Amino acid sequence: MLEATESRPDLALLRSHLCARMDEMFDALLPLPDAPQARLYRAIRHATIGGGKRLRPLLVLLSGNLFRVTEESALRAGLAVEAIHAHSLIHDDLPCMDDDDLRRGRPTVHRAFDEATAILAGDSLLALAFGVLADPRTHPDAAIRSELVVTLSRASGAGGMAGGQMIDMRSTSLELDLAGVTQLQRLKTGALLAWSIDAGAILGRASDVNRRRLADYAACLGLIFQIADDLLDHEGEEAKAGKRIGKDAAAGKQTFVSLLGAEGARQQARRLLAEAVSHLAPFGAEAALLSDVAEFALTRDH
Amino acid sequence: MLEATESRPDLALLRSHLCARMDEMFDALLPLPDAPQARLYRAIRHATIGGGKRLRPLLVLLSGNLFRVTEESALRAGLAVEAIHAHSLIHDDLPCMDDDDLRRGRPTVHRAFDEATAILAGDSLLALAFGVLADPRTHPDAAIRSELVVTLSRASGAGGMAGGQMIDMRSTSLELDLAGVTQLQRLKTGALLAWSIDAGAILGRASDVNRRRLADYAACLGLIFQIADDLLDHEGEEAKAGKRIGKDAAAGKQTFVSLLGAEGARQQARRLLAEAVSHLAPFGAEAALLSDVAEFALTRDH
Repeated sequence: MLEATESRPDLALLRSHLCARMDEMFDALLPLPDAPQARLYRAIRHATIGGGKRLRPLLVLLSGNLFRVTEESALRAGLAVEAIHAHSLIHDDLPCMDDDDLRRGRPTVHRAFDEATAILAGDSLLALAFGVLADPRTHPDAAIRSELVVTLSRASGAGGMAGGQMIDMRSTSLELDLAGVTQLQRLKTGALLAWSIDAGAILGRASDVNRRRLADYAACLGLIFQIADDLLDHEGEEAKAGKRIGKDAAAGKQTFVSLLGAEGARQQARRLLAEAVSHLAPFGAEAALLSDVAEFALTRDH
Repeated sequence: MLEATESRPDLALLRSHLCARMDEMFDALLPLPDAPQARLYRAIRHATIGGGKRLRPLLVLLSGNLFRVTEESALRAGLAVEAIHAHSLIHDDLPCMDDDDLRRGRPTVHRAFDEATAILAGDSLLALAFGVLADPRTHPDAAIRSELVVTLSRASGAGGMAGGQMIDMRSTSLELDLAGVTQLQRLKTGALLAWSIDAGAILGRASDVNRRRLADYAACLGLIFQIADDLLDHEGEEAKAGKRIGKDAAAGKQTFVSLLGAEGARQQARRLLAEAVSHLAPFGAEAALLSDVAEFALTRDH
């Protein structure tokens, strides 16, 4: 999926390893029961196994590497945030939200199953995420596990991702300006990306100053991703994206591209990339892969 | 709401105190923001403030009282499970699930707002619950907070409440027998009731044997509640219930009443009440209010 990374062999290798591990971990966590609720497990597995860029787990891993976090801890925190991400995609794709039939090149959960099953699959994944984080296998120190739960709760709920989706649902009538679109992105997609990077720092007992630096990097990264998404939605190919494109414009929603123009948005993303990289400077060469991620965010073609 | 408790003044007094505290706590936790996502907060407040029997927080409080748990700890765990309960009501009421217009005598969230807002409000409450539990104010020992999160995640997800709702959605075609209906109840409503009672024990570092006794009591209590619900659905009055009744029969779903007959179901509930009380015997007079709850479960008229 990350074809553009031939110039970044470490990142491509790591992602390939990570995609395999995430699939294995979801598979182990969600065995199909021989019971009448098996349909629910099939729907959850459909949404979590065998697809996705696994960007959020990658960010946990790279951030955690700065502070010598064990792979087991980082992978479990990555699994939790990936579960929340899958939850949000299932619910956002529903007919009463974005009404999408295609996700990652496959039918969305409510198309492959039905709406009720999709709602319950999303709910189950949200509950699962917090259980994974609070499990002693995630970190031996319960205070750290609790902090992960508190911060992910904030990032995914009404004050974070769900609040962002609420604004997005109203965005056509709200006629958002640049500040409004930025706030929408910060909540809807930025909060989980920022949590992923913070999770590595929390697991590694990073200092407040280092957490702050990574939060500044995360704020830039989230915006770069959204601008790139808007550019792909404007110019991309549906086959590569694996989902419907051009839908924001069709819905009359404001985006970074509609507000800044394609060239203006691209320039803004390049400025943000330079700023993101500058926030990583104090970490030296160890943060090279986090720089690569920010660059990938801008140059990806899907 | 608990009119039938004039013979149990302590329980009525405690419930009245609890209803007021839950409303205050949800109000404090969910201030209306001056922001475009305010609609989401209004929907969550509609679903959580000013209604409900607050049975689950009551169970946390009564169970916690056996082990000298502070009121602050019990109320916060009670708030968390009440948030999950409200989440499940919002989602279960949706058109693609039970399609209900009335809840607690008021319009359901998707009727008062819209479907997308209802889905996001339910999601937000689920995330909120885990954040409340993991917050240091819930208990000074992070290991206890983490255990509460792990157990509530299990009780509310695919292996618990959400799995039960999945079976319920399929129950007309499944043609469940008594074992099937019992398993459905154990997951759909029993898991959260059992968690509420276990939460008091976890907060109070109860011994395994005492946790087991309370779990046995909880299993009986859950069944008593469901049988009483089925009886009310069969014989009750919509005005008192504050929701549509007779819908299970209309949908062709098997219930304890359809499988055992009204009198058979009533007898079974009386047997379960005696068993529930017997599991509380080792706790002596201190567990009197938990006995009262089991009796109330059977004799309530809504």
